[in-house]
Amino acid sequence: MHTRIIRDIITASLVTTFAMTGHAAQWEALPEAAPAPADNPTTEAKVELGRLLFFDPRFSSTGTVSCNSCHNLMEGGDDSRDVSIGVHGKTGGRNAPTVWNAAFHSVQFWDGRANTLEDQAKGPVVNPLEMGMTGLEEAMNRVRAIAGYKPYFDRAFGAGDSMTVDNAAKAVAAFERTLITPNSPYDRYVKGDKKAMTKPQVRGMKKFADIGCISCHSGATFNGPTMAVGTGFYMKFPSFSDNTYTGKYKLTDDTGRHEVTRQEADKHMFRVPTLRNIALTAPYFHNGSVNNLDEAVQVMAKTQLNRELRTKDVQDIVAFLNALTGEFPAMSLPRLPGTPGKSILAD
Amino acid sequence: MHTRIIRDIITASLVTTFAMTGHAAQWEALPEAAPAPADNPTTEAKVELGRLLFFDPRFSSTGTVSCNSCHNLMEGGDDSRDVSIGVHGKTGGRNAPTVWNAAFHSVQFWDGRANTLEDQAKGPVVNPLEMGMTGLEEAMNRVRAIAGYKPYFDRAFGAGDSMTVDNAAKAVAAFERTLITPNSPYDRYVKGDKKAMTKPQVRGMKKFADIGCISCHSGATFNGPTMAVGTGFYMKFPSFSDNTYTGKYKLTDDTGRHEVTRQEADKHMFRVPTLRNIALTAPYFHNGSVNNLDEAVQVMAKTQLNRELRTKDVQDIVAFLNALTGEFPAMSLPRLPGTPGKSILAD
Repeated sequence: MHTRIIRDIITASLVTTFAMTGHAAQWEALPEAAPAPADNPTTEAKVELGRLLFFDPRFSSTGTVSCNSCHNLMEGGDDSRDVSIGVHGKTGGRNAPTVWNAAFHSVQFWDGRANTLEDQAKGPVVNPLEMGMTGLEEAMNRVRAIAGYKPYFDRAFGAGDSMTVDNAAKAVAAFERTLITPNSPYDRYVKGDKKAMTKPQVRGMKKFADIGCISCHSGATFNGPTMAVGTGFYMKFPSFSDNTYTGKYKLTDDTGRHEVTRQEADKHMFRVPTLRNIALTAPYFHNGSVNNLDEAVQVMAKTQLNRELRTKDVQDIVAFLNALTGEFPAMSLPRLPGTPGKSILAD
Repeated sequence: MHTRIIRDIITASLVTTFAMTGHAAQWEALPEAAPAPADNPTTEAKVELGRLLFFDPRFSSTGTVSCNSCHNLMEGGDDSRDVSIGVHGKTGGRNAPTVWNAAFHSVQFWDGRANTLEDQAKGPVVNPLEMGMTGLEEAMNRVRAIAGYKPYFDRAFGAGDSMTVDNAAKAVAAFERTLITPNSPYDRYVKGDKKAMTKPQVRGMKKFADIGCISCHSGATFNGPTMAVGTGFYMKFPSFSDNTYTGKYKLTDDTGRHEVTRQEADKHMFRVPTLRNIALTAPYFHNGSVNNLDEAVQVMAKTQLNRELRTKDVQDIVAFLNALTGEFPAMSLPRLPGTPGKSILAD
């Protein structure tokens, strides 16, 4: 239902893109904090626990895959691959979205199948192509087998029966809400430092608006208007499929949100992804089929706006997109609690 | 040749173990710095570069396996698994040795097939079961494709043709020489703090010497006497094979150093591993077949000393082994240089 409403809004918006060109775009800097749901306020104790869980590979069936494996915080919050590799070398069907600034998405996954970061955190654990656990309780039993985790759960959620699946997911989500990359050249520019962006970047910013990229990639995170949590901002991709890119990059093989809802109206609808740190998250698109930001911009212009851009315009827009690379918060290497004298992965 | 000499020394040592019992054991604290070879003095710039390379998964064929994948510095410097998993879910034949304090080993790998940390660092990169690159130059081309690495190489090795395989290996080795875990309860005890170890730990320490564990696991790192770099301190495992453990844990399936030298005398000879942080590196032995430190102690007593220990003695020795868990140096989460606009793993 929501999906259909949004699609209609977008379709209307797309049609009026060119009419919008003359209007001043609303440029927003990235907020310094992400909103948290009422039932999971962000606390230091939760963030600390979530950070450990995020990096711990022992909750995957083989003990080799952690959240960080595919959402690598040492890089762009993804894995540089077209589609990710999980346990036993299995490959998934979609490109890993960056976890940086994921807190500003109103739904999670390319198809919006999780409403919240809390829900999202549970998915990969039991996905046979990702962490491959047979159940969330099985995964939680691994956590419970590590005595050193108990004090972290107690501090975050109160003593007692604190080691639950929901609390683990809450902690991971709380940690993810801190994964914000402020102070990009763009942010400094819109806050008034006119020297923060280069001339090509400023030109690219204007073109990004004039051409109509901004009709979907709007707002502080460039992922669309602010939506209620659980209400996705989706767009059909490709919107225009009568071009060589569609076949070349297999853009219609994946039906997107339709795979979740089975609604005809959701065919090829995908969540509009953030463009923050986009320069660091190649390869691009839901299937990771395009390994070049210049080409990705061309493909988007053609498939979403039915336009062919001049090389110079592409270069300027790419320059602007590079201005969306922010500062990554310093973080210490986690020390994961051990299980002295035995491994929870053997026996 | 070296191997044979060492084996003879050990055999003699083993025979005289019981005679040694009355002597005061030489207890040594862990040195705070590791010696470096003349051609690779440890410098801050090398350590910083080596740290980045150690954590970077992009030099494996799939882009998913870094040094840290199997030698996890967030844990005991290993991977909690019996045998490690490399690219495409492939499993290796041996248990990943801890990288913590590896600098104090005179040879590397269970079979001593690398003389130095520099040589060792190159092995897993081109092992088809580990990082799976077809050649070291191919791996190095991945590094070279990341422009952000160039300044690190230049700072570490001087400007110019600094991005070489040998320099990358030197940097990783330099970083590994900083992976030292001092100030364990044992270290504080032998430095004079008699309250640093518990009574069971002190009893275990004495038993460890009296029973003869120390005849092989001697020295500051509990991996044998100080040897020249490249000269391994090997021991036959099992030395006594006429027991149920040998079959149960398949201890003779792997012929150890013999697989490298094909010398009959090297059959079942393995490098004596460090016992530092042993409580955090389960499962145990070259094949990771024993997932319990108590059982590992029993197996060692039977297979190496032909003794059956009382439960209480095992408990005390395990308590002592837990006193060998040191302090892990604080480290920031690395920020790996990016490749804006494209991934080096795609195309």
